[in-house]
Amino acid sequence: MTREVTMTDPRIAVLGATGVVGGEILSILEQRNFPYKSIKLLASARSAGKKIKFKDRELTIEETTPESFDDVDLVLSSAGSSTSMRFVDEIVRRGAVIVDNTSAFRMKEDVPLVIAGVNDEDLKWHKGIIANPNCSTSQLMPVLKPLHEINKIKRMVVSTYQSVSGAGKEAIDELLESTKAVMQDETYTPKSFQKVIGFNLIPHIDSFLDNGYTKEEMKVVNETRKILHAPEMQISCTAVRVPVFISHSESVTLEFEKQMSPATVREILSQSEYVEIWDDPSSNNYPTPVDAAGQDPVYVGRIRADISCPTGISLWVVADNLRIGAALNTVRLAEKLVEMKLLNYQKVTT
Amino acid sequence: MTREVTMTDPRIAVLGATGVVGGEILSILEQRNFPYKSIKLLASARSAGKKIKFKDRELTIEETTPESFDDVDLVLSSAGSSTSMRFVDEIVRRGAVIVDNTSAFRMKEDVPLVIAGVNDEDLKWHKGIIANPNCSTSQLMPVLKPLHEINKIKRMVVSTYQSVSGAGKEAIDELLESTKAVMQDETYTPKSFQKVIGFNLIPHIDSFLDNGYTKEEMKVVNETRKILHAPEMQISCTAVRVPVFISHSESVTLEFEKQMSPATVREILSQSEYVEIWDDPSSNNYPTPVDAAGQDPVYVGRIRADISCPTGISLWVVADNLRIGAALNTVRLAEKLVEMKLLNYQKVTT
Repeated sequence: MTREVTMTDPRIAVLGATGVVGGEILSILEQRNFPYKSIKLLASARSAGKKIKFKDRELTIEETTPESFDDVDLVLSSAGSSTSMRFVDEIVRRGAVIVDNTSAFRMKEDVPLVIAGVNDEDLKWHKGIIANPNCSTSQLMPVLKPLHEINKIKRMVVSTYQSVSGAGKEAIDELLESTKAVMQDETYTPKSFQKVIGFNLIPHIDSFLDNGYTKEEMKVVNETRKILHAPEMQISCTAVRVPVFISHSESVTLEFEKQMSPATVREILSQSEYVEIWDDPSSNNYPTPVDAAGQDPVYVGRIRADISCPTGISLWVVADNLRIGAALNTVRLAEKLVEMKLLNYQKVTT
Repeated sequence: MTREVTMTDPRIAVLGATGVVGGEILSILEQRNFPYKSIKLLASARSAGKKIKFKDRELTIEETTPESFDDVDLVLSSAGSSTSMRFVDEIVRRGAVIVDNTSAFRMKEDVPLVIAGVNDEDLKWHKGIIANPNCSTSQLMPVLKPLHEINKIKRMVVSTYQSVSGAGKEAIDELLESTKAVMQDETYTPKSFQKVIGFNLIPHIDSFLDNGYTKEEMKVVNETRKILHAPEMQISCTAVRVPVFISHSESVTLEFEKQMSPATVREILSQSEYVEIWDDPSSNNYPTPVDAAGQDPVYVGRIRADISCPTGISLWVVADNLRIGAALNTVRLAEKLVEMKLLNYQKVTT
């Protein structure tokens, strides 16, 4: 996707540029040749001065201060929730728009929660903040949306198989280190995770709530309902960390209003530009995390009539959690904002 | 569990003694001090002559022939389906009873499919063959049985996280080798699995059927119904191989006839001698595969009211697939047969 750079391109800032998702945002901005008038990379004081290669130049990380946003129209943020909350008022007050990757604003009534290509219309009522959904929710949306439009989804039961990269750089190192430790029969004390993740599984992502679900699980419930405008959809989720570096996988059971054949599901999903169907058991064709890593599509396989429910469909959804689940959607939302002329300076000048 | 050895103890044979499950059977026979008058270890011609340490002696593997069963009362078999099918008539004709770990006889109407402590009564109508359920089914049974007795389970949706040891010795080596290859950035050509299993997941166990499910998934459906005498129970399963050495984990969603609180579920399960509840989110207490490996109990955690269904309960079940899912149940069934005097020579002499 190449566009001509014009004088009306936004001045952008990448907040949290040194993190796993921040790095991915930069690589996707470069790949997609995102048009901007100026770019600045922001992080904490600790990273200030660090250089990062971007296109054919080297950019220097700057410490984030309120004044960082004086000359910025669009902030792509993947800093933590506390950073986002600390700076959001300063960003909005200065007339910039922030696309935020944290969970800080997702469920706020006046903040649109958007997956590009799924509910772009919601961008129109933004008040300076647009929230990027949780990674486990994100990859489900391009799959559920077109199906739900044709045949209402009444209930969804999801079990996730989430890679460690969703937990950041230290978590990736921890998978590597703990795997080595197990192979050498050494004791390993976990840091990012509650238990050793090497050759193990942890049914615990984010903190536990009073209802016995984790925050991660309830994000899937609440964010799905908000994005699909389906407050009545019944959803249950079990979120599990697996010893995989990149890509989240999800075993999904859907209960529709009316019976729908796997062939119809394939037909509907094949029309989505965001979804790719890998579903031919006879040739061992189904997606795995390694297949999806570094790729843009949401991959769907194992599509079958759920034999435990007459209106049910079961399927297996795999996507790169750093891309569709975070950085790719951030950049796509930035593109949509520019295209739809929803940045504040565009509203003034057009 | 120690018992006095008497003259009426059975003459036993372990068929498939050189496999992963065979080795586990021997270790459990030793641990539980299973009483026998004589023991022989049988395998293919390839392994004949090999020595295996058992208790304070060394036993020599013998090649399996029909005559091997001339002086045997009880066969504990973990050879493949083809071996079991080749020798079963010879075994039964000679008056021995076989406890078989393969899928060859499980769904036959005249073969009881039994989990010790769950449906022992079914042992009574055996005709020489007792089938040991598939590992994914086995660990669910001690959990489902006491709940189903009190409050009928109408529907179950299961997603599995199955360790490689369920696929045998080569599969264990393959997880190790492919993990090393990925860490050294080398290409690895899978042998036991369809795709690289190191740091990856494979949503494919056993072969695919016409309905889009795998045989492994349909085993959970059909075997659960048979063991629980619940032909009307609606069940769906998605079976996934994960890069874990030992223990299968299962994310389970149950729909009961009547509403039942998580507290009641805990109360019922806490009375089972086969189940251990690890379920205190506030102290990160829930089972993981590493916790269960080498242990006898089926561990249950994450017990919560399913928010997507008024009569639903979600839970997380982890157990050592080589033990409860295979070897431990084999030995427990052997113990039950002796206790219940269901071996043929016991019927004659008592």
